[in-house]
Amino acid sequence: MQRILSDQLVPHTGRTVRIAGWVHRRRLLKSVAFLIVRDSAGLAQVVVTDPVVRAAVEALPEETVVEVVATVVVNAAAPAGVELTDPVVRPLGPPAAPPPFDLYRPVLGAGLSTQLDNAPVALRHPSRSAALRISAAAVAGFRAALDTRRFVEIHTPKVVASSTESGANVFALDWFGRPAYLAQSPQFYKQLMVGVFERVYEVGPVFRAEPHDTVRHLAQYTSLDAELGFVADHRDVMVVLRDTLAGMLDAVGGRAGEALAALGAQLPAVPTQIPSVHFADALRIAGAPADEPDLAPAHERALGEWARREHRSEFLFVTGYPMAKRPFYTHPDPARPGYSNGFDLLFRGLELVTGGQRLHRHADYLAALAARGEPVEPYAGYVEAFRHGMPPHGGFAIGLERFVARLTGAPNIREVTAFPRDLHRLTP
Amino acid sequence: MQRILSDQLVPHTGRTVRIAGWVHRRRLLKSVAFLIVRDSAGLAQVVVTDPVVRAAVEALPEETVVEVVATVVVNAAAPAGVELTDPVVRPLGPPAAPPPFDLYRPVLGAGLSTQLDNAPVALRHPSRSAALRISAAAVAGFRAALDTRRFVEIHTPKVVASSTESGANVFALDWFGRPAYLAQSPQFYKQLMVGVFERVYEVGPVFRAEPHDTVRHLAQYTSLDAELGFVADHRDVMVVLRDTLAGMLDAVGGRAGEALAALGAQLPAVPTQIPSVHFADALRIAGAPADEPDLAPAHERALGEWARREHRSEFLFVTGYPMAKRPFYTHPDPARPGYSNGFDLLFRGLELVTGGQRLHRHADYLAALAARGEPVEPYAGYVEAFRHGMPPHGGFAIGLERFVARLTGAPNIREVTAFPRDLHRLTP
Repeated sequence: MQRILSDQLVPHTGRTVRIAGWVHRRRLLKSVAFLIVRDSAGLAQVVVTDPVVRAAVEALPEETVVEVVATVVVNAAAPAGVELTDPVVRPLGPPAAPPPFDLYRPVLGAGLSTQLDNAPVALRHPSRSAALRISAAAVAGFRAALDTRRFVEIHTPKVVASSTESGANVFALDWFGRPAYLAQSPQFYKQLMVGVFERVYEVGPVFRAEPHDTVRHLAQYTSLDAELGFVADHRDVMVVLRDTLAGMLDAVGGRAGEALAALGAQLPAVPTQIPSVHFADALRIAGAPADEPDLAPAHERALGEWARREHRSEFLFVTGYPMAKRPFYTHPDPARPGYSNGFDLLFRGLELVTGGQRLHRHADYLAALAARGEPVEPYAGYVEAFRHGMPPHGGFAIGLERFVARLTGAPNIREVTAFPRDLHRLTP
Repeated sequence: MQRILSDQLVPHTGRTVRIAGWVHRRRLLKSVAFLIVRDSAGLAQVVVTDPVVRAAVEALPEETVVEVVATVVVNAAAPAGVELTDPVVRPLGPPAAPPPFDLYRPVLGAGLSTQLDNAPVALRHPSRSAALRISAAAVAGFRAALDTRRFVEIHTPKVVASSTESGANVFALDWFGRPAYLAQSPQFYKQLMVGVFERVYEVGPVFRAEPHDTVRHLAQYTSLDAELGFVADHRDVMVVLRDTLAGMLDAVGGRAGEALAALGAQLPAVPTQIPSVHFADALRIAGAPADEPDLAPAHERALGEWARREHRSEFLFVTGYPMAKRPFYTHPDPARPGYSNGFDLLFRGLELVTGGQRLHRHADYLAALAARGEPVEPYAGYVEAFRHGMPPHGGFAIGLERFVARLTGAPNIREVTAFPRDLHRLTP
């Protein structure tokens, strides 16, 4: 008999079916026992009256993997309106050891640290798995939005001979006896691939050896990168980003609606035109001194509130960040060269996306590196490509975990990451 | 005026359009000059008769990025039956330096080493970019096939505290002062996630510090991993793999048909049931001694020819590899415990996929490690999870680059990899 999932019971009402999953919970009452089986689709209630079967169920602790052959009957009080009766219950493995927390309770009764130490089991709880389902849906939406716009997916090296962003916070490794580094971003490669496909994207891990121990930093995270050529300036990039975000949120709504509901999360609307303020105005709105070179988290929060109040938008572009605070490949604003054609996108008052227009002329790269006192040699393979014809281009990078955390209201990014890596955590 | 791509010219016949791209080639005849512009969609022929425009075009070397505003007219002799006349040509950047090889020739006239040294430019040639388009299509097909079958996409750590596969050939790195390693596969994590979602997949980089310098090994490659729970044995995994491969090839045909044609590649048919031979029989068919523990490349080639001859199949499963040659998490064949429930899939006589059923009982893991004289401690976080209820499960891993190389007939895997990493190559 073919196994069915718990969400396929209703059409099988009156018939004998086979389900399989984990013993989610047992309720051992006097005259009857209820066995709740969890599978990837949800929960199924099995009613046990036969004393022999009951004795077997009593010996199967929560999380034991079982198979149940039983009859589907209507019961308005059961989950989805049906339950399983006259069961034959067969374990598919040995009795499970009890996890360090009860997975059947609505809230996982353990601190985050215990959850992370026991991630393989903690992730089975809906509060944790829902975030990962949302994550999968968001990535699917990212790719679908860009596929429609003729972007080509690429896969680029994660080990490089020199650091991507100027210098610090890289993980060093030994590459067959040579020094090498984990890539902090696919920045250089996605730009180079604009020369091949015009429009490219990559979904992959990036590595930051930042000694931050905060709720919003990870040492490995999943970066959703896109880059496109033949732009007039950064505003063309912002249009694609807006549409990509809308596609991601549509996909989350469509593919992970139950997961959103499980977390009580609300999908934000993406305005047709996301409001945008120049950095200089952003400082004023946030009440920061006019000579601040960057936005602090408190400024971002203030801007998020302003966007919600003034524009009813949970998203806000800040454009024109000072050149001094942006990487060397950033294109300056031709009208105000101290400012850049770089932008950030704030989501609910937190930086979610960084992007902008990049330099595309070889001479500009040489000048930019010289102005920062950096040698060309470590970047030779990258900079050299700009001698051979590169169009005006730009792009953006979305931090997947940060996006999901902000969307679900998780206070710590680790709550939406399966197996986080940070300053302290290298296992499991 | 909105830019259009070169494959959108025909519906604009008779109108003035704007295109942009790279100077692919110039043909400077006496009375007329032809400017061939390359963009992401293909080539467009621009006819230049005005002496002033001609002088400008003469000053724009191949690979310079240009914008052309001109009128679309029918010309049966031109690519796609139309060409552009009365052009205004504007460079979008400085004149390009000539690449070390001519990109407009049908065959890239440079050895692979020169191509790889100059990858950002070499990849612009159709012979190289086509393989990457096929690669993108194949990955899209992989995901679509598994999404349909309720698999959930995951993202797992690429830096781990101990090596995934027993011991050798790992890249060591410094993780905030602690020793760590680049993940050789997402094997442990995808198994653990079967406990959460039952069915998972991951597309991501894996790292092998193998001192191989061969045409079919890379030190970083893209692994297409899938794992599923509640299987009877490895044969359930093989069914999913068969359908996934069919989905990949369908997607390549549908999304990258032109790229296939450019490489003269033929899509193989995937039999409804891929032929399968047991390892012991495979040795006999390949003419190998009966006590060989593994298949050598020559054996795989012989088996590939046999499958084509006897089953008209370009694919062949070899099942039941000896336990001695499979990793410790491999499930033995209950009927013949010296053999495993592990399999390889050969594609045109080369190993393309490795997969199998895994152990799912905690006690079996302890026994398997003990039998190999390996301590449990390095695997503690992984092995421990099996105490908490894991279903019978299995999975597979497809090497993306190897798949594309075999599909396109590329003799060296580096030809289908954008920026390969190997024993000698860490740049660009």
